[in-house]
Amino acid sequence: MSGAVARIDLNADLGEGFGVWRLGDDDALLDLVTSANVACGFHAGDPVTMRRVCAAAAARDVAIGAQVSYRDLAGFGRRRMDVAPDELAADVLYQLGALDGFARAAGTRVRYVKPHGALYNTAVDDPGQARAVAEAVAAYDTRLPLLALPGSALAEAADAAGLPFVAEAFADRAYTAQGRLVPRDEAGAVVTDTAAVVARAVRFAVANEVESTDGTVVPVAARSLCLHGDTAGAVRLAHAVRAALLGAGLALTPFAD
Amino acid sequence: MSGAVARIDLNADLGEGFGVWRLGDDDALLDLVTSANVACGFHAGDPVTMRRVCAAAAARDVAIGAQVSYRDLAGFGRRRMDVAPDELAADVLYQLGALDGFARAAGTRVRYVKPHGALYNTAVDDPGQARAVAEAVAAYDTRLPLLALPGSALAEAADAAGLPFVAEAFADRAYTAQGRLVPRDEAGAVVTDTAAVVARAVRFAVANEVESTDGTVVPVAARSLCLHGDTAGAVRLAHAVRAALLGAGLALTPFAD
Amino acid sequence: MSGAVARIDLNADLGEGFGVWRLGDDDALLDLVTSANVACGFHAGDPVTMRRVCAAAAARDVAIGAQVSYRDLAGFGRRRMDVAPDELAADVLYQLGALDGFARAAGTRVRYVKPHGALYNTAVDDPGQARAVAEAVAAYDTRLPLLALPGSALAEAADAAGLPFVAEAFADRAYTAQGRLVPRDEAGAVVTDTAAVVARAVRFAVANEVESTDGTVVPVAARSLCLHGDTAGAVRLAHAVRAALLGAGLALTPFAD
Amino acid sequence: MSGAVARIDLNADLGEGFGVWRLGDDDALLDLVTSANVACGFHAGDPVTMRRVCAAAAARDVAIGAQVSYRDLAGFGRRRMDVAPDELAADVLYQLGALDGFARAAGTRVRYVKPHGALYNTAVDDPGQARAVAEAVAAYDTRLPLLALPGSALAEAADAAGLPFVAEAFADRAYTAQGRLVPRDEAGAVVTDTAAVVARAVRFAVANEVESTDGTVVPVAARSLCLHGDTAGAVRLAHAVRAALLGAGLALTPFAD
Repeated sequence: MSGAVARIDLNADLGEGFGVWRLGDDDALLDLVTSANVACGFHAGDPVTMRRVCAAAAARDVAIGAQVSYRDLAGFGRRRMDVAPDELAADVLYQLGALDGFARAAGTRVRYVKPHGALYNTAVDDPGQARAVAEAVAAYDTRLPLLALPGSALAEAADAAGLPFVAEAFADRAYTAQGRLVPRDEAGAVVTDTAAVVARAVRFAVANEVESTDGTVVPVAARSLCLHGDTAGAVRLAHAVRAALLGAGLALTPFAD
Repeated sequence: MSGAVARIDLNADLGEGFGVWRLGDDDALLDLVTSANVACGFHAGDPVTMRRVCAAAAARDVAIGAQVSYRDLAGFGRRRMDVAPDELAADVLYQLGALDGFARAAGTRVRYVKPHGALYNTAVDDPGQARAVAEAVAAYDTRLPLLALPGSALAEAADAAGLPFVAEAFADRAYTAQGRLVPRDEAGAVVTDTAAVVARAVRFAVANEVESTDGTVVPVAARSLCLHGDTAGAVRLAHAVRAALLGAGLALTPFAD
Repeated sequence: MSGAVARIDLNADLGEGFGVWRLGDDDALLDLVTSANVACGFHAGDPVTMRRVCAAAAARDVAIGAQVSYRDLAGFGRRRMDVAPDELAADVLYQLGALDGFARAAGTRVRYVKPHGALYNTAVDDPGQARAVAEAVAAYDTRLPLLALPGSALAEAADAAGLPFVAEAFADRAYTAQGRLVPRDEAGAVVTDTAAVVARAVRFAVANEVESTDGTVVPVAARSLCLHGDTAGAVRLAHAVRAALLGAGLALTPFAD
Repeated sequence: MSGAVARIDLNADLGEGFGVWRLGDDDALLDLVTSANVACGFHAGDPVTMRRVCAAAAARDVAIGAQVSYRDLAGFGRRRMDVAPDELAADVLYQLGALDGFARAAGTRVRYVKPHGALYNTAVDDPGQARAVAEAVAAYDTRLPLLALPGSALAEAADAAGLPFVAEAFADRAYTAQGRLVPRDEAGAVVTDTAAVVARAVRFAVANEVESTDGTVVPVAARSLCLHGDTAGAVRLAHAVRAALLGAGLALTPFAD
């Protein structure tokens, strides 16, 4: 680190209500994160909410990212869909443009793109869907980074499309010795102890590494940590992570400037 | 007209299919019009269609306009909705941004905004909804013209919001002596004779006037003529109108450059 | 009342979540009400929720009613729509049949129909939309009562269609001397004092009357009282109303048997 | 066949428009088929169309079947979705009940259920989704047959759920020596020669067999033949098939009485 202050970004999903329905505490999270993954209407996010969240993010200098999804309001984008690449690319462009409209109206721009839910997971392993996402983003603006798992098909697709790629890490998820996330349906996949999560967050940010389930230490060069915010406990945890990172001397800054 | 060649714009609704469903002949119309009112997904227009129509319009130097609507796929945007101004403004911004994403990916931009269906009609007489539309467009880009009926609430709202306003005329609709359209449910509201429609189109373009239902001649300073294209007969009519305008020495150019 | 025990029904809106989103406490309300107005998917109510609520209602002998709405998830059915009568009737039939499928799977049937939100309000004053609702219900089963405001267009339409009509009252809403609800945008439209609401509920149930805003006593022959349940305070209030009604010797029974 | 007249059913997809959009010629097909697979609103089929098609089918004594689908209007139900079994079952029940409402209003009932598009294909090989479909139908009415491919997971699920199963065949699709359909993306998957399709239809109906791609004759005991009707050519083909079946002495009757 040699003199320069290490920087880390905190990202979280925001604006995930729809119409009368709310999910999570957008305002509380906007005070904690440096990057907001804003829902774009396909899994959540009505236009009024999108506009409000973009304005609130812009007012706090929180970077706005497009949290793009399959078109699946009823399933919150959590169900894998076999969408053809041209359809998926068009769906991504639609959502990206829509959110950017609100960002522009708030005096800023969408700064990055992060797939949501089942699309996030599919883009880890499915080169066709990953390429479709990257193609759409590149068609809009080749300066927009994709935010996702390092080593994923989406990381490769970003490279191939000439897009920046930003790796993220999850302080509350167990990692394998290969640096992959332990699948959610396996025991121990989620780290629930607050102190452990905080410690892992700091280790990601300071040392760029994580202890895997078999005890080996795995390098994870993540520029951003993903926080969850859809429960009261999660917001408290996010507070604790933020405080610990600041206490460790990290600078909290958006990765996208 | 004194020396300068008179110019007129031809606009039509395009991209009004959804998924497997088609409506109208987008390619035939794109060869006839100078401005394309592209559906944005709320009354019609899936993302694949939006992307394709934007690319095809850009390739022909046809200006792309956002044909914004109430959120009503089942009713094709033809049913008036009492949408609150902040919701309507956000809906308009969402659609405008989404379409502009496709326009940008095609190397161009959305050049204007035209409300669709019931929103078009409501914006004639309802200042609250008209202001909401204008506010949304102004929040996105104050250089974007609104295209609608002269004398409408939307024309006033455009002025108030600092937006350009472009008046359009309908060669196949009867006009009152006050220059308003005869409502569709009244006898004689629609002019069906091809020769009459063509003659009225030329008169709008050359002399900026129309003969009203009581025989008086009414001035209508329209920079654009609206063509309908959702039937085979309508495409033939559009051909005839276009040929007559060219034959009368008019230049067919987009109003938005 | 002369010997026979007076009976009253308590109805409330249930199942108004959608997908991941929740609204209100369905289980708490199902323990309090005798009739459940179950959302049918057009303003709220995904199929999993509909199935679960129908099963839970059937298990408690709570009568299931179809809470039919305009097709408007984004607006929660709260925005008036100019839907043509044949479209509205088909929309109502669709929702009614869908809910009845879940009721049948739970071993019971839909017992009544109550319009939701803007459709409820429109059906008070708009004979065309009221007739469309009644026509749809009559086409399905002429034994199904409509539940709504006494004196409304819907009450007349029910009569004309040969449907039973059941009047409901609102203990937390102010009434005019003519027995109509004071519009929500007027001062004092909503009664917020718990004791006052409880007292008014008992008076509706025991004496079939309410004191209007000008102090006159107005007869309101309501067989059902509508409770609201989408806030924690509302559930507590419902508890209080229920306890007071039981304490006054009323029998709490569904109006639809 | 020994004396008794052999019977065959002709089924086709109907009511697959949505709002202003049309697909196929419902009236032409209703004059040709004995069973109508009516779209239920999830991949196509607005309520007005559903009501109209049910009334028209009832008037012609055409059996009404529920053509249930994933919730995917934008993709016409052609995209596989990883829907959890409880969600899929609830989606099926919702659609089945909704269509049955229109059938009841037309004086009849839904007589069978047939999955559409990607759900049809998934139910061939995916026991979990197949069981979910069968569970939903059994929860509604255990007398309702499922119509699908013989040998499919759905056939097994129907058995396990106590539902009747009815096998269908496709005269315009190539079969493997194992009696499965040749996948659409393989050469020769679709038989396009009219005379060949007609001959295969008659052979299915009379001899319950088909010649597979390697020349072997495969038994296919189908009680119903599926016709396609979404093109003008397809309607003409359906005419030819129907005439040939009648000419061969077959009785055209619904399988569901």
